[in-house]
Formats: sequence, structure tokens, C-alpha cells
Amino acid sequence: MKLTALAGGVGGAKLAHGLAQILPPEDLTVIVNTGDDFEHFGLSISPDLDTVCYTLAGLANPVAGWGRADETWNAMANLKRLGAPDWFNLGDSDLATHLERTRRLREGQTLSQITRDFCAAWGVRHTVLPMSDDPVRTMVDTVEYGELPFQEYFVKHRCEPRVRGFRFAGIESARPAPGVLEAIQEADALVICPSNPWVSIDPILSVLHPSSFIFHPLVVAVSPILGGRTVKGPAAKMFAELGIEPSALAVAEHYRGLLTGFVLDTVDAALAPALQRENVRTFITNTLMNSPADRRRLAQDVLNFIRSTPPNTEH
Amino acid sequence: MKLTALAGGVGGAKLAHGLAQILPPEDLTVIVNTGDDFEHFGLSISPDLDTVCYTLAGLANPVAGWGRADETWNAMANLKRLGAPDWFNLGDSDLATHLERTRRLREGQTLSQITRDFCAAWGVRHTVLPMSDDPVRTMVDTVEYGELPFQEYFVKHRCEPRVRGFRFAGIESARPAPGVLEAIQEADALVICPSNPWVSIDPILSVLHPSSFIFHPLVVAVSPILGGRTVKGPAAKMFAELGIEPSALAVAEHYRGLLTGFVLDTVDAALAPALQRENVRTFITNTLMNSPADRRRLAQDVLNFIRSTPPNTEH
Repeated sequence: MKLTALAGGVGGAKLAHGLAQILPPEDLTVIVNTGDDFEHFGLSISPDLDTVCYTLAGLANPVAGWGRADETWNAMANLKRLGAPDWFNLGDSDLATHLERTRRLREGQTLSQITRDFCAAWGVRHTVLPMSDDPVRTMVDTVEYGELPFQEYFVKHRCEPRVRGFRFAGIESARPAPGVLEAIQEADALVICPSNPWVSIDPILSVLHPSSFIFHPLVVAVSPILGGRTVKGPAAKMFAELGIEPSALAVAEHYRGLLTGFVLDTVDAALAPALQRENVRTFITNTLMNSPADRRRLAQDVLNFIRSTPPNTEH
Repeated sequence: MKLTALAGGVGGAKLAHGLAQILPPEDLTVIVNTGDDFEHFGLSISPDLDTVCYTLAGLANPVAGWGRADETWNAMANLKRLGAPDWFNLGDSDLATHLERTRRLREGQTLSQITRDFCAAWGVRHTVLPMSDDPVRTMVDTVEYGELPFQEYFVKHRCEPRVRGFRFAGIESARPAPGVLEAIQEADALVICPSNPWVSIDPILSVLHPSSFIFHPLVVAVSPILGGRTVKGPAAKMFAELGIEPSALAVAEHYRGLLTGFVLDTVDAALAPALQRENVRTFITNTLMNSPADRRRLAQDVLNFIRSTPPNTEH
């Protein structure tokens, strides 16, 4: 069975890693949000893409979920000494990724070429594709500061400002990266990872031409919200600030029209009937991924769910 | 006594450090070559300037002479893993300097503003000025590769190509940085440090308008060549490749018309009469600087020599 997963950062990377533990390299493609890419100190930084690649490579910091394991922070300490902006953590090993990505982009290479080469160097055998080689920049409209570039909202302001909306700057002229549409067309199923619907998955969906995506007959999402809260990140807070009660149901509603099946945490078992009434099949399991074994177990649940779910012939 | 020193990298930094151990901050300005600046991985790197600042700050690697003490190399190791160009060493702590310099230059700050702020952060109390805020790029014309940017000649090709000449790209439109001309006019004496005459001192001399420089009545140089060889770097090799027998005499000849006094190593004592015949006063001492104490001792010799040397009234 060939799967294509759509992923943001930490939560998406964890499920992608679980799937990669089960599926052979040729059967898994991970399409990653690049709406959170930004430029800092002249470097081109792709946080979600790096998190997914580091995680699949076994190079990620297992505690933080982002950044590198066994990282050192000497550049950062010296940046602080110089009074430089220090709100975005740049580990010494991680810096090499940004430096070489920047060098290659300036040389005219595309982000997808660079990602392929980096994955080869890091021993990532499954396919990781940025959603686009064209720049898309998620802007978060906030009550306190107006529109903020995503990383300023997310890291500098620690998701504290109240959200009013989102804009994906550059989306009009952004094309899916080479291989993205093929990976979706050729997949037996799409998996929407437990990533933030607003700022991780929506940019990917927005860059995909509707005709190639929303009619995929088998789309399964894993809820990033359980018991009304997120494991990590501001998804639940965003739903609430946008006037929507945060819940797994709200996530399914967000993806309305796309979903064939939806994976709910056991704490949300009571929400299943409402989804079934909307013609969305449900699967209830423990969706927490606290260890690599958890990731594999959830991935296996998702695969079993997909195998038992008939494609949506209405699509 | 107010001194202004002209310096390149390691040798110049050592004598500047010696002078800084003796003179109070208000009495020493170091004007540093920026012809060896370059862009690498999108970063603006100023090797000579950093070497001088790190040395004056006590942050320099005491063995290598360049780079930082207690440096780590995790970014570099990861760049190698990605197959990135690895001919220029970027230490983790050193990277912070390049990152923040790049950020500030892009923000529109000048190299001299940035250098002043960095010196303040590092505790350098004497004045360090880049020769110019405008880009000047030393190009080395070689037999084997034609024209090479300086760092490619110096680091990537390890000074191996045979030199045919030099060009300082951008020199026509480069103005001395703010404070440079004043530092020269107000100095009681100029010291040309034991740096490479062709690629460290000539770029500085070239950016200075002749009227403000060559008529300074008291200019003392310390020979970077002793016994026909250099302590470090390709100065002697360059003289030979350009058809000039490398010697302290050749250095003095290179600065002909500028010099009031010349400091020779004891191994070159026999060359003094020839210089005196040219109306250049000489001072013979041990010019090797193997320790901070050596630097101070040589600096004290230079100061004593200057005090005993009458200004050249012919200038």
C-alpha cells in the first residue's frame, strides 16, 4: 500500500516516523509544510522540513521534538553576547543545514533538490518533499500586533497574541514541488498527520490544485486535538480565538469534504457518532506518541484503519 | 603619544595587541585591511578584522593565531556531512560574528558601526576601524588559475598558485571608513605592522587618499620578512614569484617614500646600512612574537624607536 502523508513539524514528523518504521521507502512520501519557512541572519530556514527530516533520520532531539540531538549552542551564546536577536534557537549542528541550504538556493538549486540531497546525506530513505519550491509565507493576523510572520508569532511571541486569521503570502503563484501531485495521485491513501490544521496543513492544501487533491477517494486524518487540547502547539488556542470550540470534531469539520476517515483519541470516543452521521468513518485509539514505539503503534493503527476503509466513491 | 597602526591578520594583530598592552585606549587606533573580506554561505566574513578584534579581546586561538579559543566545530562537521564546501573553517562561536555582521549589514548598518559595537561587546577598548565601509576585494592573479578571490587563493588553494599580480576590486569607489583619516592625521606616528605588504597593507594604503597619508612625517614599519622568510603567510613567496628577492630590504623598498623608520629582526642586522643609505632609520631587535610577552616587548621597542626618531621634515 502506497501512502502519502501531509505533515507540519513535531506531531507530523512523529507519525511520519511511525509510518516509515513500517512502510518500505518506495511506499511512503511525506509532503511537508513550508509556509513556516523564513529568513533569519540571511539564512533560509525551513523549520518543519528540518523537523521531519531530522526525525526520519534519527537526528532529532527526542525531548524537544525539534532541533538536533546532542546539539551544542556556542553560536547562540555568542550571538547573545553581541546583542543579536536570540528568539530563534540556532544550534551549532542545525546551523550547517541552514548554511548549506542557503548556499545552494543562492546557487539556483530548488528546495526539493536540496531536500533530496540532504535526506541522502542523512540516510533518510523515504521520500520527503517540500510542498512547494516557491516561497509561501504564512502570516498570522493577530489582535495585538496585526499581521505577524509565522515564526515571529510562533517563536518570538510564543503563540501568545490572539489570532484573527491567516494568510499564505505567495500562495497564488506557488506551484506544488515536483513529485507532489504524482505522490498524491499514486497514493492508495492520503494521511493528514496530527499537525496544526490552520498553519501546517492548510498551507499544503492551499498549494495543491483542488482537482488533484480533494477528490482523492481515501483521506484519513489523525486529530491533533484530544480532549479539547493539543499535545503541543497552538491549534486548540487558534480554534478558540476564531470562535470555534476546540475539539477533534472541529478538526474534522475543518477538513469537511476531504475526509474519508478520522482517527480519534480514546478520550474523544464519545465524538465518534457525530462524525459517523457526517459519513466520516472513525477509528478510536491512543493517539499520544511519547516514544518511537508509540509512533509505530499509531502508524500501524492508521494503516489498519485505511485497509479496512473503503474508498469514498462519492469523491 | 598617539599611534595609528595599519594591520592585516595574525602578525598585525599580534603587534597591535602588544601596543594595546602599553598604550591607553585613547592613544591607539588600529586600521584593518578589509580586502580579504568575502561572502560564503551568504555570510559576510571579514577575516582580518575578526583576527584583530579577537586578538585584542583575548578571544583568539593562541595557537592558530586566527579563529576563537575554545572553539567547537559542530557546524563544520555537519557541513562536511552535507557535502558542502569545507575549505574555509567556520567555528561555532566564530559563526555568531558572521551571522550578526550579516544581519546588521543587511539592515543597512556600516561595517565600522558594527565593528565598534562588536568591540564594545567583546571588551576591546582601543579603537579598531575597518579601512573602508565600502567593499574592496583583493584579487590575486595566478599563473595556474588566473584571477582568484583572495580567500580562495589563501585558504582554498593554500597559497600554492604562483602569483603574477594583485587587483583591489572596488578600490576606485571605496572611501576610508569614518575616523580613518582623522586617526592618521591626529597620530604622532603611524606603525605599519608586520603584515603582508601586497595583500594586507597595500589595500589599506590604496584606500587612503595619498595627501592624507604619504606625507605623514613619522611612519615606522616592522618587517614581516626575517632572514628572507615569513613567520606565517605567503609574503616571501609572493616577492619571489614577482621577481624580487624576498628580504626585509625588499619590504622597505616596497614602502619606499613612506618610511621614516624600519624595524629589522636581529638576523637581518647586516641589512641596516643599506637602509640608512636610503635615509631610513633602522632599529634592530627580536621581532618574533611567540607569546603575549613577546608582543609587548616588540611593541615597547617600536615605541622607543618612534620616540627616538625625528619626524621626516622632507615629507
